[in-house]
Amino acid sequence: MMKIRVAFADTDAMGIVHHANYLRYFEVARVEWLREKGLDYKVWQSRGQHLPLIESQCRYKKPARFDDVLEVSVIPKIDGVRIILDYEIHNHETKDLIATGFTKHVCVDDNMKVLALPKDMLSMIAKI
Amino acid sequence: MMKIRVAFADTDAMGIVHHANYLRYFEVARVEWLREKGLDYKVWQSRGQHLPLIESQCRYKKPARFDDVLEVSVIPKIDGVRIILDYEIHNHETKDLIATGFTKHVCVDDNMKVLALPKDMLSMIAKI
Amino acid sequence: MMKIRVAFADTDAMGIVHHANYLRYFEVARVEWLREKGLDYKVWQSRGQHLPLIESQCRYKKPARFDDVLEVSVIPKIDGVRIILDYEIHNHETKDLIATGFTKHVCVDDNMKVLALPKDMLSMIAKI
Amino acid sequence: MMKIRVAFADTDAMGIVHHANYLRYFEVARVEWLREKGLDYKVWQSRGQHLPLIESQCRYKKPARFDDVLEVSVIPKIDGVRIILDYEIHNHETKDLIATGFTKHVCVDDNMKVLALPKDMLSMIAKI
Repeated sequence: MMKIRVAFADTDAMGIVHHANYLRYFEVARVEWLREKGLDYKVWQSRGQHLPLIESQCRYKKPARFDDVLEVSVIPKIDGVRIILDYEIHNHETKDLIATGFTKHVCVDDNMKVLALPKDMLSMIAKI
Repeated sequence: MMKIRVAFADTDAMGIVHHANYLRYFEVARVEWLREKGLDYKVWQSRGQHLPLIESQCRYKKPARFDDVLEVSVIPKIDGVRIILDYEIHNHETKDLIATGFTKHVCVDDNMKVLALPKDMLSMIAKI
Repeated sequence: MMKIRVAFADTDAMGIVHHANYLRYFEVARVEWLREKGLDYKVWQSRGQHLPLIESQCRYKKPARFDDVLEVSVIPKIDGVRIILDYEIHNHETKDLIATGFTKHVCVDDNMKVLALPKDMLSMIAKI
Repeated sequence: MMKIRVAFADTDAMGIVHHANYLRYFEVARVEWLREKGLDYKVWQSRGQHLPLIESQCRYKKPARFDDVLEVSVIPKIDGVRIILDYEIHNHETKDLIATGFTKHVCVDDNMKVLALPKDMLSMIAKI
């Protein structure tokens, strides 16, 4: 679970977090979650393993606002060569559910060719 | 159908459009599509009618890159108090399918209370 | 001179364009301006010539809002190995001055080593 | 001094942090710096005091990359009704200077009318 504070730049003229930014929050939480599990996404990239999205979904439950602290949790699933990550975002103070969603990823090389999922990721997922 | 040229700021270190930006492209196309139909979203806002998202989904088919011209089409559906907009993004030059997705909206007032869908939107959708 | 319509995503909770987005508008106008002059920035990149910023400045005169159409003009200067581009942003409808600014660039190769300015850019600037 | 980790979404196709994002980092550091000094920007906003930018400047010294941890320091100055904040961004690991810059602000009310600087801000600055 990762805490993210809403930046002013993340808001829009409705006074709430612009919906596209939840995908950014998912991404930041994903990278931190991998790091906590001992996987460094930057290292992966340097060895030519990338995890681009093939699908994303987000359900917006309650608005988040400037300076709110959000808690983003990540739950992984493996589906063949795809990894699916489920997210929940809660307001840290009120515990309100702000958004849920998922991202689906495949692993590709530097030329965007699909690879099998890295073994260190698979064994990490198996342990959860 | 709206044309959007990929800005350099929209790309990421994989050399492709960052996935969160497709939601921005959907939004820009949505606003232009409403305008073409005779509906001005800014006017709606000034009379206290907003169309926040309750859900978004995007499927990433092929990467888009800096300076690509994208064609974004919008197809509407009404589902009770919700409006669902389907999107397709093609590369203008190659005609490759880049992404598909949808956004679900409700109409709310300035205090985020859900309203019935505006009649001018309903009659506009009925005409399509 | 390039026209840019303010996207809803570009606004912030003050109801105006978030200040960081003017640098994006400068960039979009810069790329279009180069294209009008017969220079394709994407082609430059593919031959290993990049124009990263070494400095930017922006003065915010009047707020811009969602759906405003902005006119962005670009005026170039050469200063040794550096190119300086001055920008003015006006509201298309009211002609109000919204922002002014500049960006300073050097030309670098794929390894971020500074190069002399490309001859096609120099001759283009000389013609203006 | 605030630590900010570079998100993947902050990078561009040159593989480095897109230059507009430094203004975002300045902003996040500014809000945290005010909070450390006992000033809550969100509270200010709710009482109709905003600090929009009238000018920004950034000098880009060395590129920052995905996952870098940046240290952003803030140094304030008062100049009549304007507050000027100077920033320095260093790479946390290498201590390299990444960027410097400033933002100039005035205090405005909800209708964008310029106010005298809030007394709590002036007394806070005087104490530094």
